[in-house]
Amino acid sequence: MASGRGRVTIAAIAEAAGVSVPTVSRVLNGRSDVSPNTRELIERLLREHDYRPRNSRHTGRARLVDLVFNDLDSPWALELIRGVEDVAHAAGVGTVVSQVHRRTTATRQWLQNLRARASDGVIFVTSDVAEPVHNELHRLKVPVVIIDPAGGAASDVPTIGATNWSGGRTATDHLLSLGHRRIGFVGGPTDLLCSRARLDGYRAALEAAGLRVDNALVQVGDFRHESGFIAGCRLLELPDPPTAVFASSDLMALGVCEAARRRGLRVPEQLSVVGFDDLPESRWASPPLTTVRQPLAEMGALAARTVLRLSRGETIETPRVELVTKLMVRESTATR
Amino acid sequence: MASGRGRVTIAAIAEAAGVSVPTVSRVLNGRSDVSPNTRELIERLLREHDYRPRNSRHTGRARLVDLVFNDLDSPWALELIRGVEDVAHAAGVGTVVSQVHRRTTATRQWLQNLRARASDGVIFVTSDVAEPVHNELHRLKVPVVIIDPAGGAASDVPTIGATNWSGGRTATDHLLSLGHRRIGFVGGPTDLLCSRARLDGYRAALEAAGLRVDNALVQVGDFRHESGFIAGCRLLELPDPPTAVFASSDLMALGVCEAARRRGLRVPEQLSVVGFDDLPESRWASPPLTTVRQPLAEMGALAARTVLRLSRGETIETPRVELVTKLMVRESTATR
Repeated sequence: MASGRGRVTIAAIAEAAGVSVPTVSRVLNGRSDVSPNTRELIERLLREHDYRPRNSRHTGRARLVDLVFNDLDSPWALELIRGVEDVAHAAGVGTVVSQVHRRTTATRQWLQNLRARASDGVIFVTSDVAEPVHNELHRLKVPVVIIDPAGGAASDVPTIGATNWSGGRTATDHLLSLGHRRIGFVGGPTDLLCSRARLDGYRAALEAAGLRVDNALVQVGDFRHESGFIAGCRLLELPDPPTAVFASSDLMALGVCEAARRRGLRVPEQLSVVGFDDLPESRWASPPLTTVRQPLAEMGALAARTVLRLSRGETIETPRVELVTKLMVRESTATR
Repeated sequence: MASGRGRVTIAAIAEAAGVSVPTVSRVLNGRSDVSPNTRELIERLLREHDYRPRNSRHTGRARLVDLVFNDLDSPWALELIRGVEDVAHAAGVGTVVSQVHRRTTATRQWLQNLRARASDGVIFVTSDVAEPVHNELHRLKVPVVIIDPAGGAASDVPTIGATNWSGGRTATDHLLSLGHRRIGFVGGPTDLLCSRARLDGYRAALEAAGLRVDNALVQVGDFRHESGFIAGCRLLELPDPPTAVFASSDLMALGVCEAARRRGLRVPEQLSVVGFDDLPESRWASPPLTTVRQPLAEMGALAARTVLRLSRGETIETPRVELVTKLMVRESTATR
């Protein structure tokens, strides 16, 4: 398949995949009008045969995409890195991972470094892009994509998330269908849109079942384990405690499980718990956690494809994308 | 403190930290002859005051360090990324994260990308550096550091690990001191030096206690949860099952806990379990896991400092470094 010094052509890849040359080009250009299976096959062939684009626009310079977190403190981050790296790697682009610790000085230094390395694009995770940063990136013509934006993302910045509202509703419906009526809720940071959508999904499910929302059952956390543990303790100390809890992250759900264990309560026999994310950690728990899957690696992959398209000057048809969530029933939920 | 257009000098940083200018230089140059506390203080000041090196050797070009994993499939990877990123960020260097999936073609493409972006250095994780890659990096004058090497690392490549043998011994001693006599062992991939050292530490502890090593109690896994679950099932199905298990990764220890739960056995009342790593996941487990801490973030930070020193042409005094492991007693172990 290789022609001369190991260099493989688009035509050869197309032949091996049994598709047309334009289809391979579409994958190389990160376009979305290719079926997932075909894209996967072609990306695999490109990797296996070590395809190198001729890189007309970028001759001689390294291509890089920046992936920026507030903090690298959740396994959640690793799922996104994996998704971004997969697509970037296939396109011959390096993935630069940074954490800015929500500090302005760190952001400033990061911006200087970004300029020095002439990054092809930036993917921000769960953050607002501050006005000056946004303007500077615009001036440098560096495209930006945001995963799980906070409230005030500029309207011209594409965002990628999951169907958080329906995820929250599905999780709560699942608990209702098991006969639970007092269902606790542990939410994420209130400044994130995804947190608000999960809470609203919980409320909508309860209201559709003719139940009123008891504010004593609604706790706020920060997606981390410790905050889930604290919220779980508060819920279980109520005079009329819940028989089930929906926590809007897997780590907070694990914290709720630990709060139950400390009180001698068994999951799921005495308390049902549902998480959100479907991190590998939810499968590693004892018992394995029922949770709402959001396709984090796919979200990362889509963010990478989008930012690479923008870097080639293409326009994006749908600047707001929400990938589908799905309930994964495991062993942390049972009938009341 | 800043002088002209927000630019801060080394002298100003030294004054703020109450140290000499050469001390700040030593930190900037990633040298090891600075006390940890002083280094931390100086690195924090450099970050906060957004210090930018003049970068005489690297004028005009972006500085990057490459961090290469076989797979980004363990939370373990995130700890290392955080450690590397912290040091690189402070030095104004970007961290490029890649996974090569143990495929030669992926490695080849990665090498081409690395050349294009003129990386300042490469940190490999748990891998041998294949002879051709090693030669090519040598030719390109790109320095290499390996974290947790496999057996055959070239002798001129610096390596960073943890005191795996004493970690294995300490974990086993802890179980012995609780009165356990039948102690199962779940090992990692046998081609990794760190796996072998943990097994030998387990054996040494048993022999020092006058116990013979029962090969039926020694299982092999691959550090992942699933392999720990399978090994745990095998151990608990023995005619004379162990009362305690030392698993040489936290994820395998969680798998052993799940194998126990499936059989209706409670941890730690009916089975004590010790892990290895001290990932955040060990604290998130119910019950929280007793484990051997290896300082992963520190290992990543040291690897970054080492590779940056090598990129400046400095020589490394100690090409083999093992950071200290430490037993963290939590709630998954109890007296027999």
